[in-house]
Amino acid sequence: MSEKALHYLKENRERLLNKLSDFLAIPSVSTDSAYKGDVDQAADFIVTYLKDIGFDEVEKQETAGHPLVYAAYNGAGEDAPTVLFYGHYDVQPVDPIEQWKSDPFQAVVRDGRLYARGSSDDKGQVFMHLAVFEAYMKTEGNLPLNVKVCIEGEEEIGSENLYNILQKKKEQFQADFAVISDSGMAAKNQPTILYGLKGFTGIEITVNGPDHDLHSGMYGGAVRNPIIALSHILASMKDENEVITVDGFYDDVEPLSDAERKLMEQAPSEDFVEATGIPETVSEKGFTAKEHTMGRPTFEINGIYGGYQGEGTKTIIPSSATAKITCRLVPGQDPEKIQELLEAHVNKVAPAGVTVEVKKEKLSSKAYKVEPNHPLIKKAAASYTRAFGKETIFIRMGGSIPVVEWIEEIYDMPIVLLGFGTPEDRLHSPNESFPLDSFDKGMETLVYYWNEINK
Amino acid sequence: MSEKALHYLKENRERLLNKLSDFLAIPSVSTDSAYKGDVDQAADFIVTYLKDIGFDEVEKQETAGHPLVYAAYNGAGEDAPTVLFYGHYDVQPVDPIEQWKSDPFQAVVRDGRLYARGSSDDKGQVFMHLAVFEAYMKTEGNLPLNVKVCIEGEEEIGSENLYNILQKKKEQFQADFAVISDSGMAAKNQPTILYGLKGFTGIEITVNGPDHDLHSGMYGGAVRNPIIALSHILASMKDENEVITVDGFYDDVEPLSDAERKLMEQAPSEDFVEATGIPETVSEKGFTAKEHTMGRPTFEINGIYGGYQGEGTKTIIPSSATAKITCRLVPGQDPEKIQELLEAHVNKVAPAGVTVEVKKEKLSSKAYKVEPNHPLIKKAAASYTRAFGKETIFIRMGGSIPVVEWIEEIYDMPIVLLGFGTPEDRLHSPNESFPLDSFDKGMETLVYYWNEINK
Repeated sequence: MSEKALHYLKENRERLLNKLSDFLAIPSVSTDSAYKGDVDQAADFIVTYLKDIGFDEVEKQETAGHPLVYAAYNGAGEDAPTVLFYGHYDVQPVDPIEQWKSDPFQAVVRDGRLYARGSSDDKGQVFMHLAVFEAYMKTEGNLPLNVKVCIEGEEEIGSENLYNILQKKKEQFQADFAVISDSGMAAKNQPTILYGLKGFTGIEITVNGPDHDLHSGMYGGAVRNPIIALSHILASMKDENEVITVDGFYDDVEPLSDAERKLMEQAPSEDFVEATGIPETVSEKGFTAKEHTMGRPTFEINGIYGGYQGEGTKTIIPSSATAKITCRLVPGQDPEKIQELLEAHVNKVAPAGVTVEVKKEKLSSKAYKVEPNHPLIKKAAASYTRAFGKETIFIRMGGSIPVVEWIEEIYDMPIVLLGFGTPEDRLHSPNESFPLDSFDKGMETLVYYWNEINK
Repeated sequence: MSEKALHYLKENRERLLNKLSDFLAIPSVSTDSAYKGDVDQAADFIVTYLKDIGFDEVEKQETAGHPLVYAAYNGAGEDAPTVLFYGHYDVQPVDPIEQWKSDPFQAVVRDGRLYARGSSDDKGQVFMHLAVFEAYMKTEGNLPLNVKVCIEGEEEIGSENLYNILQKKKEQFQADFAVISDSGMAAKNQPTILYGLKGFTGIEITVNGPDHDLHSGMYGGAVRNPIIALSHILASMKDENEVITVDGFYDDVEPLSDAERKLMEQAPSEDFVEATGIPETVSEKGFTAKEHTMGRPTFEINGIYGGYQGEGTKTIIPSSATAKITCRLVPGQDPEKIQELLEAHVNKVAPAGVTVEVKKEKLSSKAYKVEPNHPLIKKAAASYTRAFGKETIFIRMGGSIPVVEWIEEIYDMPIVLLGFGTPEDRLHSPNESFPLDSFDKGMETLVYYWNEINK
């Protein structure tokens, strides 16, 4: 019965791509309050789409932050399984805007890729699911399984309100299993199912010195420079071997088995140097770049600022300096404990003459791992392989999807991470894009998968 | 004969303060090209004033950057000495603007202080000289000595064009001695003559990593983070004892004699902690805060930036990070050599996986010291003491005035540093101000001094 749906998707490809472009044109940047109205508009787009498809219930649920879209389709009958589909319609900021080759909110196709902020993360992949639902409804008049939809607008700012909603409305979102397409393949056209994700946490460090910027000639020699103090603190947290030098940071890390390290080495991966333009890769002493990215915790400074950043020179001792830090965690590590350890370290090494503030990132999540042999995973892998004509591989990835940990914790249901992005998509960066191959074959995969589920 | 001029200044005090306010209202920020027109307007203000006073020659000399105002008065006759008066009409940027209690370009008097950007550094002090010239001309019909005026608009950006002009036009600016009022007193109403200034140099370090910002989940573990690399570099340049750990940095430093250290300890100074709000002072191991600020070289990071600095979190590995560094030098040290040493150090410690760029600050100057017993200095001290009713003290200061070194080098003429600012003026910071006491007694000092010179 899936042929009709597949045919429909081919017939309507251009219209669907245009509709996706309309969706991508909405600058739903959740981290910047200036875009609040646009984020809201993106939610409305989904609400309208789901109603048009013919879902039984469609709700735009207001939260303390950005709205969440809930919808349910029960037409497959009581015996049919119910899937909870999760995705997010919010996107990362676009700066540095000057590095974009085309308007981030005006989707354009170049060399078989659709360029726009959110084309891969995650508006593009959310849209593919909706289009497949549309195809089944328009051709069969129903879906092969019952569906619950949960599409939020706060993933890029840590899904601040989602956890409470999932807890409070446990019955509403209850399902037999969950499917999430907010990840990528190990390589273009290489069917990939994630069986492991990293956890996430972070802190922001602010070093405060004088209560105003000082003339470096009059006060230099009497006052601790907050930027130098911050540099000493940061330099003490990770060494030149990429080893995190915060007491206890590795204590609970689940060691990588030789089997897993082998799997990771065999997993296809892009050439990091070629993809990023760096002179050479660096990774934790004793581990390869692949092992570190997939299976070892990381510590990154995402941003730093303090003092004069304008044109020319300004001879001051600045009054403060700030660094934003985030860590990716592996199975075994507890995010709250890691934050405590980071804070304790900062307070331990903070020099005299300044005061130090540590702000803890609200977003925190544990790492996630699932059993690759679960029947639902195997059906997904089979559909994936059929659509792409290539054997599906199973890998762990360095990214973090907090909702995965929360769904597991609250509902204890199997979660299938079925991602269609590629390593070249430039998520979170200028010139984000998504391959049209993934768009076509990804939808084909979903058509097969929904069809398989109810057999 | 100086009484009439003094009387004139008292009579016209309010008008002169209003005229000064008009001068301060021009936002002549030389480092920011957006203010180019205003910088030019500030030069015109001085040209007009000098013409009104009755100088024989008044020229606005265009440069590659901002104009320089030259003027000459020869009415005192060939036997009278000629003074070269140097000052600058450009000012520092005002950011962070939100910390100003009143508009930086709308002068207001609060608690006996005139608040405005440039009120102390250096527009206010330049204006005092012009007002004293006016007072003599209006009351005596001439000045007690011949005068050459050199007022530039690029001091806050390193006087980029001044050196070449002073060399090319050596005859035009030739004089018997130079007077500069671009400095401060050791304490309010404490007559102070600077007999030593620090030199100055700097570099800007940029660490380049990936050619675009990377998703920290996908690349964390394979790529060197430019901000961490920069932190390691900066932390390696000055240690927690405030000792600069760059090979050879102290090699040529002229050691402080016990006599000078005693003089520095005795020199009145503000309470650094009270004036800056820091928890405690820090200074180079083995030296007091006073000794370090007045007589030892310093290394400051004036600004740092890289990665995401906006609201919320952005989980990236940034493509680059930059730090602006400036040093204050003491007698014996060569600025160019120091830049070489800094660059060599950076290249030596730069870690693998990134590339490092070092940009050398164009502004550079050696430190300066003069003999306190020179007759011209002693006459200045006597006038100073007479006006303020307090014994003049002689100190060295941490600030740098490149032109001092250049005048010495090119003309080899004695230079009198006659500054009327106070440590509370907040130069280069929000809420810069200048005490009206200094305004009145400073002009009185100049009236006595010009009168003394020609005796």
